[in-house]
Amino acid sequence: MTAIRYPNGKKYVPAASANASKQPTMQNSYSNRGMTLEEDLNETNAYYLEQNIAVIHKKPTPVQIVQVDYPKRSAAVIKEAYFKQPSTTDYNGVYRGKYIDFEAKETKSRTSFPLQNFHDHQLVHMRKVAKQGGISFVIIRFSLTEEVYYLPAERLFEFWDRMENGGRKSITKAEIEESAFSVPLGLYPCLHYLSIVDKLYFAEDET
Amino acid sequence: MTAIRYPNGKKYVPAASANASKQPTMQNSYSNRGMTLEEDLNETNAYYLEQNIAVIHKKPTPVQIVQVDYPKRSAAVIKEAYFKQPSTTDYNGVYRGKYIDFEAKETKSRTSFPLQNFHDHQLVHMRKVAKQGGISFVIIRFSLTEEVYYLPAERLFEFWDRMENGGRKSITKAEIEESAFSVPLGLYPCLHYLSIVDKLYFAEDET
Repeated sequence: MTAIRYPNGKKYVPAASANASKQPTMQNSYSNRGMTLEEDLNETNAYYLEQNIAVIHKKPTPVQIVQVDYPKRSAAVIKEAYFKQPSTTDYNGVYRGKYIDFEAKETKSRTSFPLQNFHDHQLVHMRKVAKQGGISFVIIRFSLTEEVYYLPAERLFEFWDRMENGGRKSITKAEIEESAFSVPLGLYPCLHYLSIVDKLYFAEDET
Repeated sequence: MTAIRYPNGKKYVPAASANASKQPTMQNSYSNRGMTLEEDLNETNAYYLEQNIAVIHKKPTPVQIVQVDYPKRSAAVIKEAYFKQPSTTDYNGVYRGKYIDFEAKETKSRTSFPLQNFHDHQLVHMRKVAKQGGISFVIIRFSLTEEVYYLPAERLFEFWDRMENGGRKSITKAEIEESAFSVPLGLYPCLHYLSIVDKLYFAEDET
């Protein structure tokens, strides 16, 4: 789960590359800060895994492979491939027997979170997961203020439906503060988002 | 989830390529029949998804990207990349609120299933999933006889531990018949493996 780097040490940023053509305005926020949220989540998930708290992984970036060379006595080399749009969310796994499924996004805006960060089919996926009784949510970071929120999928659906019915194309910061839960930032783990899952789904076990 | 094909129409077989150097004796079974099991499972999962029965996807093949070109006015092209060994199993998702996690393998042998089909870290992953209360199993196809079995992970662990303690490096066909469940073959879906999950985990709901 280590970050992929070019030979010159520059970090490889798949989300930005894959979405660059569609979301030019988001590209800067991805390339400057996007990996930080991903790295924090990877570290958190590695901590959960090591401590036997949960098994949650980021899915590999989907790639359409066109040409592969098989040199003698060495590993196969992919010579031509393209980024594909993911058909699901990026993270999933299991926690206390329950299926966990989420997407992580960040924005440089201080005032709202743009819904264009999501694709239609990701919403379709999240609705199906919720219907199957999975725990589905979004981790949203406001990168300028370093605030991280856990937004339950059910609330995201409301904002999405509002947009589809002609309403605003973003969730205001005030709405996020009202609908989402602040994720505690720490060292181990750095983004303890499962503490929110505990509160929302396992609260009765602790009383 | 469509199969990747080379421009000449030849099917692209990632599992065989990635493992070819390690498992030369398995390569033929993968290249001739391997995609069939994968295709059957993809079709089955597409059926489950469409019918709102379950949300189960195959994870993308993990690829280590080394070089990407960004031509003007067209999509980014990956020019150099390598297959990575997956750190988890290939399939996961949610069914009736429960986390589902499995690996699919086939063999050309008529008499046994070689344990070299699995990597250490896949077993580590499956044990962690089982500890978290996830439903973990292996789908095994004997390609020459077209028989498909559902082997619960707990039984696989026993055979794996026997090997690590110096015992045989495969599971005999007789042992599979005893420890695993035959997966019904049909049209919709073609491999109804969730019927076994129903029997094993939700049987009391139906009585």
